[in-house]
Amino acid sequence: MPPREEVVVHLLLTIFDLLGTFAFAISGAIAGARHKLDIFGVLVLSFAAAASGGIIRDVFIGALPPASIQDWRYVAVSVVAGVTTFFWHAKVSRVQNAVLIFDAIGLGLFAIAGAAKALAYHLGPIPAALLGMLTGIGGGVVRDVLVSEVPAVFRKEIYAVAALAGASVVVIGNALHWPPQTVTISGALLCFVLRMLAIYRGWRLPVARTSDSPAD
Amino acid sequence: MPPREEVVVHLLLTIFDLLGTFAFAISGAIAGARHKLDIFGVLVLSFAAAASGGIIRDVFIGALPPASIQDWRYVAVSVVAGVTTFFWHAKVSRVQNAVLIFDAIGLGLFAIAGAAKALAYHLGPIPAALLGMLTGIGGGVVRDVLVSEVPAVFRKEIYAVAALAGASVVVIGNALHWPPQTVTISGALLCFVLRMLAIYRGWRLPVARTSDSPAD
Amino acid sequence: MPPREEVVVHLLLTIFDLLGTFAFAISGAIAGARHKLDIFGVLVLSFAAAASGGIIRDVFIGALPPASIQDWRYVAVSVVAGVTTFFWHAKVSRVQNAVLIFDAIGLGLFAIAGAAKALAYHLGPIPAALLGMLTGIGGGVVRDVLVSEVPAVFRKEIYAVAALAGASVVVIGNALHWPPQTVTISGALLCFVLRMLAIYRGWRLPVARTSDSPAD
Repeated sequence: MPPREEVVVHLLLTIFDLLGTFAFAISGAIAGARHKLDIFGVLVLSFAAAASGGIIRDVFIGALPPASIQDWRYVAVSVVAGVTTFFWHAKVSRVQNAVLIFDAIGLGLFAIAGAAKALAYHLGPIPAALLGMLTGIGGGVVRDVLVSEVPAVFRKEIYAVAALAGASVVVIGNALHWPPQTVTISGALLCFVLRMLAIYRGWRLPVARTSDSPAD
Repeated sequence: MPPREEVVVHLLLTIFDLLGTFAFAISGAIAGARHKLDIFGVLVLSFAAAASGGIIRDVFIGALPPASIQDWRYVAVSVVAGVTTFFWHAKVSRVQNAVLIFDAIGLGLFAIAGAAKALAYHLGPIPAALLGMLTGIGGGVVRDVLVSEVPAVFRKEIYAVAALAGASVVVIGNALHWPPQTVTISGALLCFVLRMLAIYRGWRLPVARTSDSPAD
Repeated sequence: MPPREEVVVHLLLTIFDLLGTFAFAISGAIAGARHKLDIFGVLVLSFAAAASGGIIRDVFIGALPPASIQDWRYVAVSVVAGVTTFFWHAKVSRVQNAVLIFDAIGLGLFAIAGAAKALAYHLGPIPAALLGMLTGIGGGVVRDVLVSEVPAVFRKEIYAVAALAGASVVVIGNALHWPPQTVTISGALLCFVLRMLAIYRGWRLPVARTSDSPAD
């Protein structure tokens, strides 16, 4: 691959990565505003939602300090998303469809980036796929735990499964020595398409039939 | 000790370890089913309950990536426990006594394994005993936080204390140069027996008398 | 600086650090007692509130095992605070003003210590300021998550902002090569004064105006 193209691909990935960060940060800010946090609480929750997936991955593979703590752009993007949501909450809610699309893009990109980084740190295929999924869903889980709710990713339309599917493409492609660009793009696309189909067709995974209900 | 016996001991420990993982995973799956998670959410919660204690320990001592992420058997055992509980929820609830026994076995084994690994990483006696306790209770704490409940281990029959007792045997035995096998087995047994006595005799630790109640 | 003075400064910092730990541990114990945890649960929550900020910082910068796990004095101070609160809950509640002051001291000291340690581990200025803030607020966040409440630091009087201000003084002073003692003391003082003013004047950050309320 000529250097020119590599630069373009890297630039595109960075842009998508920051878009995904932005989408996850907005989901955190919306959750914070709904729970009447003050503006700083909203910013902390934005950052937590955007960065936790990558932080969990980096802690688990020992890549310390975590990238999203070290790179000021993630902090900056989170702050912009948080402030925007805080002051124009009604408008952000109205473009929630756009947010869902960004979120799906972020999920796909975080899942493949997580799996690829885990492979680069010499983890085996199953751990790498798991870590890719965790990188994708971690932010949403931490966001919901911080506002004392059961994580939505545990029960909403196909979400963690889409992340696992995207991460698995990276792991399988790596094992079969497919070209990295193809593998990365296919994985992200698979996750994104699965997620969008799940949203628009209302696909859901089965829920346990149980007579007893939780304590709360 | 002849190699033959060592192999047998190692095999037994591995079997018990996976049994403990299975028991903790079932407790996670039951919590997930009660909160109407979808099947994937149930699997994630099974794995979180089974693996979090060991993950916390491995992160704290810097043994990265954590063992339960790297060893596919823990993932496999969690998935089997989760799927079983999801589809045969009523039956699993009926053998809850068996689950409690497995859980007590798991608690004892996780506590001694946690303390022993911390000592192997050159931690002092107090940190090692603490980490043994944390390894034992961590899974239950993370499970309950993820379904937005106050961790049961903070208020149910003697639980964390049993784990601390088992871990302390390992630490004290190590300081006194007792034979590792004896120490390990005594620690696990002490934790298991304490826990079973607490369950069947209804032993409880005192609760603070306080007039004000929590906000929720 | 003559060695004599250095010893005095180090001694003072250690005393304040343990006072801060004590204050955070009391806040954890009060939360545990209000939620009817048993005595051991109260002790675990005391330790979690006192140690989590530092643990998060040490995990993020890779300083493993975390200092508050390794140094028995933090455990001892937490246990003393927890037992005291458990048995004399009414009296501790009555001196809650004193507790708030200790808490503000602890916040300031944890924030500067967090930022200074992050700089010592070669983190850049923005990550170091962030980690200082996280060290200060981490204990309160974990405490509230463990009793299933939305962290108070996300919505009470200027709290995380005070920690960030104190940490920023350390980072800026370090960049400008100011003498470390001056920087450290100024940072801690700024955080403490901001926090006390916020409490006694009822300063608050704005909260988002939103029509929809959280699900719970």
